[in-house]
Amino acid sequence: MGSSKIKLSIVTENRGKGLEALKILESCGVEAEILTMKKQEIQSDSLEEIALYSARIAYLNIKKPLVVDDSGLFIDSLNGFPGPYSSYVYKKIGVQGILKLMERIEDRRACFKTALAAIIPPLEKVYVGETCGVIADKPRGDMGFGFDPIFIPEGSTRTYAEMSIEEKNRYSHRSKAYQLLLGDLKRLYPHMWRHP
Amino acid sequence: MGSSKIKLSIVTENRGKGLEALKILESCGVEAEILTMKKQEIQSDSLEEIALYSARIAYLNIKKPLVVDDSGLFIDSLNGFPGPYSSYVYKKIGVQGILKLMERIEDRRACFKTALAAIIPPLEKVYVGETCGVIADKPRGDMGFGFDPIFIPEGSTRTYAEMSIEEKNRYSHRSKAYQLLLGDLKRLYPHMWRHP
Repeated sequence: MGSSKIKLSIVTENRGKGLEALKILESCGVEAEILTMKKQEIQSDSLEEIALYSARIAYLNIKKPLVVDDSGLFIDSLNGFPGPYSSYVYKKIGVQGILKLMERIEDRRACFKTALAAIIPPLEKVYVGETCGVIADKPRGDMGFGFDPIFIPEGSTRTYAEMSIEEKNRYSHRSKAYQLLLGDLKRLYPHMWRHP
Repeated sequence: MGSSKIKLSIVTENRGKGLEALKILESCGVEAEILTMKKQEIQSDSLEEIALYSARIAYLNIKKPLVVDDSGLFIDSLNGFPGPYSSYVYKKIGVQGILKLMERIEDRRACFKTALAAIIPPLEKVYVGETCGVIADKPRGDMGFGFDPIFIPEGSTRTYAEMSIEEKNRYSHRSKAYQLLLGDLKRLYPHMWRHP
């Protein structure tokens, strides 16, 4: 039985993302590896569509069970900006650009959302995780990546960037999406587990 | 000879874009029509790649000679933001969002750029037009679309949105790309011209 274990490839351009995912999967006994490669992405307002398309293209290339996640920060008072284009916006205007857009705005509500596309044939499915919270007044912390220094999840007083990976995973949108995937995996592929 | 004229489809989601293109083509005697349809777009930092990919997908669907243009506003002091994602950024934070990001910034330089992908078999080519200028302090004018009210092209004191289509076409990035296409068409397909 042990010989039929599946190893899951976490396809990403962002090592921070990969490490969070690896911790979640490994803590549940799923064998996984980070595969750093450029994703092909479509333009869409839907994270789910973007993630699924990227996963299918990646699968055509590597032909191994894989997951791809696409995530974004949706700020209420900015109509959901930067949303699916968060990593582009981060590269261009950074945390400071978002804080400038939020100047003089009272409503600080925002949600981080992950669409996690898994292709583990015959399973092909997109799992969505969401964590809401508020945009901080200034950046705090130097862990994590992207907009982590300005996002405070509900139930905490600290930003994602002030948390270790383990602590962030207790709150995070990404972690919630992975928990949904893990539920399906346990049911569908019991042989993937090191400790069934 | 007249019976072999080509009619060019201008594929776009944005009627304002379509009308500008139609005026340019018709003023040069090229028969054209606007085909309003949702474009399929990839995420890329390259307008050229986005336009070419969209044109190929559209060609698979309609199988007629066509052009697709992808355009963006690149602001120097914002590292080229909003760039290829201008229409998304416009929908989400609008002209006011860009003006807020530009508060307290001295350097107002920006360029509008169009990548115009033409598929007129056997021709498949991307033409690039660029017009530089500055970001205005506040929006002016109600013609045009998108970020036109805050862009003042070099050589003018008025924004794109204060200009008629004909006048905007004398300055515009889009018009420059079309002029390059027209040069090729005259050479390659003399029968396309109503008045050869």
